[in-house]
Amino acid sequence: TIAFDPTEHPHRRYNPLIDEWVLVSPHRAKRPWQGQVEQLDEQEKPAYDKDCFLCAGNTRINGEINDDYKETFVFTNDFAAIKQDTPIVKSEDPLFTMATEQGESRVICFSPDHSKTLPQLSVKAITRVVGTWQSQCEELGKTYTSVQVFENKGSVMGCSNPHPHGQIWAQQQLPTLVMKKQKAQQTYLQQHGSNLLQDYVVREVENKERIVVSNDDWLVVVPYWAAWPFETLLLPRFSVARITELTVAQKSSLADVLKQITIKYDNLFNCSFPYSMGWHGAPFDGQEHDEWTLHASFFPPLLRSATVRKFMVGYEMMAEAQRDLTAEQAAQRLRDLPTTHYKEQS
Amino acid sequence: TIAFDPTEHPHRRYNPLIDEWVLVSPHRAKRPWQGQVEQLDEQEKPAYDKDCFLCAGNTRINGEINDDYKETFVFTNDFAAIKQDTPIVKSEDPLFTMATEQGESRVICFSPDHSKTLPQLSVKAITRVVGTWQSQCEELGKTYTSVQVFENKGSVMGCSNPHPHGQIWAQQQLPTLVMKKQKAQQTYLQQHGSNLLQDYVVREVENKERIVVSNDDWLVVVPYWAAWPFETLLLPRFSVARITELTVAQKSSLADVLKQITIKYDNLFNCSFPYSMGWHGAPFDGQEHDEWTLHASFFPPLLRSATVRKFMVGYEMMAEAQRDLTAEQAAQRLRDLPTTHYKEQS
Ligand SMILES: O=P(O)(O)O[C@H]1O[C@H](CO)[C@@H](O)[C@H](O)[C@H]1O
Ligand SMILES: O=P(O)(O)O[C@H]1O[C@H](CO)[C@@H](O)[C@H](O)[C@H]1O
Repeated sequence: TIAFDPTEHPHRRYNPLIDEWVLVSPHRAKRPWQGQVEQLDEQEKPAYDKDCFLCAGNTRINGEINDDYKETFVFTNDFAAIKQDTPIVKSEDPLFTMATEQGESRVICFSPDHSKTLPQLSVKAITRVVGTWQSQCEELGKTYTSVQVFENKGSVMGCSNPHPHGQIWAQQQLPTLVMKKQKAQQTYLQQHGSNLLQDYVVREVENKERIVVSNDDWLVVVPYWAAWPFETLLLPRFSVARITELTVAQKSSLADVLKQITIKYDNLFNCSFPYSMGWHGAPFDGQEHDEWTLHASFFPPLLRSATVRKFMVGYEMMAEAQRDLTAEQAAQRLRDLPTTHYKEQS
Repeated sequence: TIAFDPTEHPHRRYNPLIDEWVLVSPHRAKRPWQGQVEQLDEQEKPAYDKDCFLCAGNTRINGEINDDYKETFVFTNDFAAIKQDTPIVKSEDPLFTMATEQGESRVICFSPDHSKTLPQLSVKAITRVVGTWQSQCEELGKTYTSVQVFENKGSVMGCSNPHPHGQIWAQQQLPTLVMKKQKAQQTYLQQHGSNLLQDYVVREVENKERIVVSNDDWLVVVPYWAAWPFETLLLPRFSVARITELTVAQKSSLADVLKQITIKYDNLFNCSFPYSMGWHGAPFDGQEHDEWTLHASFFPPLLRSATVRKFMVGYEMMAEAQRDLTAEQAAQRLRDLPTTHYKEQS
């Protein structure tokens, strides 16, 4: 009998946070690629662009003028997907269930510098981004149960403006994925008497092979169940349920680890690495939520190079996510990269 | 108080087949698009391409020679994601759960004509494709529990060869999405004493507003819970659990409705409309499965034009799917289009 080799044999791994599996087919990395090649957005950008809707002092599409901001800047999305004043209606017909939603959608400019992305900002500047995430969650969490912080980076990830920015969508109801994660963490707490992601951190620290970067407070791993080729999970090494609960020291160590992981990403293919990232933590519902651990996920699409991505299509849409290299292989690739940004290497 | 207007007010709709919600924000369709523009693959293709790995008589990358086929042609994927002979191993550690998988992955050429896609084939030729899906499921269903039939069409959907073709991935375990659908249909049967999708067909036939095309046997709707802008669901108007159970007459009426819906799609933006499509039915496990209704889904990414797509990114990856027009608006757009393919209109 042949021994199981994870880098050779197709297998499925289980994501306990969302109760879904992923098919791992590492031998498939050998197939040649003759399909779509992405456009690189590698031209140098100016620090200020007079046509950018997000640069300081510029006029947006709806006629509003941006503050002459020096650090971060937050405004309400001019084309918000959720609004404050929607009338409350619902239908509980089992085949036609619906409910209106109330909420707010905001844009966060990370820096007035149009030309820089997160890995190129100083730890101090990234700390201000973390502080803005915190204060926004604090404020919106007073009115809304769910506050989703996220960033779409790169045109391949649907980002329509290269100015460094993220978004926050706050709403009354828990979105599908947040609800799944809450249920999974609750079930784990009931069954094991401990916190799912805190137990996971302990195991990953012991094991080491999926760790990409870390510091005293934070750990970034390619999770055992990663679906996207270079997906990572950013976890606290201490107990915390919400981003609003971080101390001043934990905020700056978070900025440090965010700089570390985004530098690794840019260095993988020597390009401004596209991804969607976002935060999940306990809802702002006034409850304790011992089951929750605050965490961030990065979902980056690139697979082979700066222009060849993984497509989550046919099989993935109909059956389950599929990946072409193991989590351990991806972690090692990222871990072995230089810690200085490729544009700053001499 | 303002009355609820589904085309104006953000709301969430529930997908009872997979227990997930989608956020509908129809007013967002008004926002201007300044992001990524897709490449059109609109150049005319020859009926035979000597460099195509799928054309009849050509040599594939692994040295095998394709049959000189005249109708459909099936071969084992040269870079299969699942294989027959993987050693059987599993781990039930709650944080590191895995299981190896055995299976087969095949390619189905729909026609020897390199230049044509499904809507351009005759109903007779499409009936042969349906027959091939049937015979493949019949054969693979003897060995494997799950047989996933799907098609990725267009380079934007990760398709790396324009020759008209689909795929089949057969495996021992039920993939995540199939398992979810099975559970949801079982629960519905227990709670209501009837079949979820058959009840849904009755309601959609009564209501009419989400129907795109139909014939005596089949119905294509933009489902109430559609996530992709022009997503559709193809449903039988009779009781059937598996594609292998279709009669000869139901096979040709299926070919008819497949031609109708794919013509509508190409006519929407006068382009070869990209999508992933796939079939779901009861597993091949020797059980009855009264809860299952056979159905196909089309997941097409285009939103505004032949080159501007919907991105399922940040919020969608972290929280839940979001759409910019209602299912009813999408159905009406498709329904109102000509029934003759734009390349054949005079
Ligand atoms: O097998 P293909 O056509 O080369 O590959 C395509 O379809 C597969 C199944 O949906 C995906 O896993 C790949 O990412 C995609 O590029
Ligand atoms: O709000 P933006 O940046 O214009 O839009 C982008 O992010 C949104 C939230 O993930 C998505 O719904 C859009 O499809 C995407 O293009």
